[in-house]
Amino acid sequence: MKIGGVAHRTIWVEPDGWSVGIIDQTRLPHAFVTVTLRTAEDAARAISDMEVRGAPLIGATAAYGMALAAHADAGDEALEAADRLLAAARPTAVNLRWALDRMRDALRNQLPAERPRLAYEAAAAIAEEDVQTNRALGEAGLPLIQRAAAAKQGKAPVNILTHCNAGWLATVDWGTATAPIYTAHERGIPVHVWVDETRPRNQGASLTAWELQNHGVPHTVVADNVGGHLMQHGMVDLCIVGTDRTTASGDVANKIGTYLKALAARDNGVPFYVALPSSTIDWRLSDGVAEIPIEQRSGRELSHVTGMTEAGEIATVRVVPAESPVANYAFDVTPARLVTGLITERGVAPASREGLAKLFPEKK
Amino acid sequence: MKIGGVAHRTIWVEPDGWSVGIIDQTRLPHAFVTVTLRTAEDAARAISDMEVRGAPLIGATAAYGMALAAHADAGDEALEAADRLLAAARPTAVNLRWALDRMRDALRNQLPAERPRLAYEAAAAIAEEDVQTNRALGEAGLPLIQRAAAAKQGKAPVNILTHCNAGWLATVDWGTATAPIYTAHERGIPVHVWVDETRPRNQGASLTAWELQNHGVPHTVVADNVGGHLMQHGMVDLCIVGTDRTTASGDVANKIGTYLKALAARDNGVPFYVALPSSTIDWRLSDGVAEIPIEQRSGRELSHVTGMTEAGEIATVRVVPAESPVANYAFDVTPARLVTGLITERGVAPASREGLAKLFPEKK
Repeated sequence: MKIGGVAHRTIWVEPDGWSVGIIDQTRLPHAFVTVTLRTAEDAARAISDMEVRGAPLIGATAAYGMALAAHADAGDEALEAADRLLAAARPTAVNLRWALDRMRDALRNQLPAERPRLAYEAAAAIAEEDVQTNRALGEAGLPLIQRAAAAKQGKAPVNILTHCNAGWLATVDWGTATAPIYTAHERGIPVHVWVDETRPRNQGASLTAWELQNHGVPHTVVADNVGGHLMQHGMVDLCIVGTDRTTASGDVANKIGTYLKALAARDNGVPFYVALPSSTIDWRLSDGVAEIPIEQRSGRELSHVTGMTEAGEIATVRVVPAESPVANYAFDVTPARLVTGLITERGVAPASREGLAKLFPEKK
Repeated sequence: MKIGGVAHRTIWVEPDGWSVGIIDQTRLPHAFVTVTLRTAEDAARAISDMEVRGAPLIGATAAYGMALAAHADAGDEALEAADRLLAAARPTAVNLRWALDRMRDALRNQLPAERPRLAYEAAAAIAEEDVQTNRALGEAGLPLIQRAAAAKQGKAPVNILTHCNAGWLATVDWGTATAPIYTAHERGIPVHVWVDETRPRNQGASLTAWELQNHGVPHTVVADNVGGHLMQHGMVDLCIVGTDRTTASGDVANKIGTYLKALAARDNGVPFYVALPSSTIDWRLSDGVAEIPIEQRSGRELSHVTGMTEAGEIATVRVVPAESPVANYAFDVTPARLVTGLITERGVAPASREGLAKLFPEKK
């Protein structure tokens, strides 16, 4: 998507033909800084320091990390070391391991002399597939926004509420929840996005707002507390969020607070959609609330807030009393009964075992 | 309630017998600083600068402001000027105007020589009545916590979720939503409070957490997004919140985000109570969502966060991109259908016109 009018992806091969560029997302929204990765170590550090985040982008970065490793030394020992290093950069990221396995398959039984070229090709394919998947999500979700626009007869923009950042910054391009929004914007449908701040890490306020702003999509940042009020007063036409993990029955684990917005949507008759590449579906799971473990992260994410001072410096301040305990549950589960539909790369499915099985019959 | 083991109120007459002490709540939770008010101007500034906040405490501060005015000059002209000054300190605070009217009634037709004594007596009565009302709320709500404790057979503390600060800092003592909690704690019932951060002004994280910590009540601060997850997993036994305005039908206007917690409570069978002095009931209103206007406050409350740096300095940082619009709706309305009961100074009423009319037959 665009930054300053120029199309960008979140990861790219630099003009030298081998080093890899990324956006340092820890500096957003206050500074747009790109970083050049030249080694597998650079890629691992970018992942562990969360300069890149979001499952698809982490996978693509790990893949390019293997390409950088092959560029330096394509021998088996060096590649095995790079694989271990990258896998350890964020051990819980399922997509990271998946990307590394795919790179291993691409290089297995190949001559070292061929491996650098094959590695860059395989990494590019992983990145390109993510873009194509997200474009497909955009096309699948577009009719939902078109219908809302038609109902409003062009008299007002379609108001879409989203939570956290399931935007292009979390992927290689387009994003998941944002893909239908960017697609509608591209087709000239007037949209306005309510951006949940998304405490405690503020990914809505710091990342989603930034990417919508730069691409030119009208939006307004609100506190996470506000969505219910907006829906009570007819100010939201539909919700679209992402998901980290989806059960075969359509339950959705996403950033903490998603469940509360789904409840408000149901209470006010607002459609609530979840956009996901089918790779996030865990076909072994059926009861999300009971079966999906919820990560607890450092309380410091809640007790401290980082931003920019008037003087233009990045500073961190404590907002909770030093003596008060804090708890930081990072995700919650929205039961399928609250989800109007799942936007996948194969189309929109009802959030149910039958709905998903119909779109993905090979997974039954 | 206690600070460092010593009982405090939020407003008091100093040992000199005439000047008035308050806590500068803008410095909480990072510093406990008291301020001595010596003039009506001091009291007006304390109100307008939000060193004191919360309807009951604003009313008591205005009343003592009139006493300070009478101490300096008890003539009609001086008192009228003080009334105007104090009334303008926070024009939308209903309780402020109510307290000033009551002070005017107390001083009307009295000799100037008598007025200072009468003014301090009237201000003390306003403060004392608030304390007694809140104690009554505590006694009325106590059985709800006792029942929850009995159901748990003392095997675990009663987990109570609250939103914003309807605590003793918003009143003269005890608070409204916190009164049953402090009362239960006083009676030896083990309680644990989930404290919503309460974006954007963070009154939960900065005020509720601080007062519970100082009084010795176990608690944990969580992001506003977390309550739904806690309730899904049986980690909340009941919710108790305050209210700024209650309709005759039991709809409740409270700090933005209250509605979302009420939805989660209903979805998970968790009782949701609202504690209120009956003075917050607006008997003319019947449909809260349609009839109660929702204040929009400065977007800066959302885009900027104030806290303490590692170096111990208070600093303000921007968290939202400078170019992104923000909206800051300050309250929302929770429909009566989501409220299990209204805790009033006369007992617990069903959240309905009939329930309230039975407790307050004179208002029908």
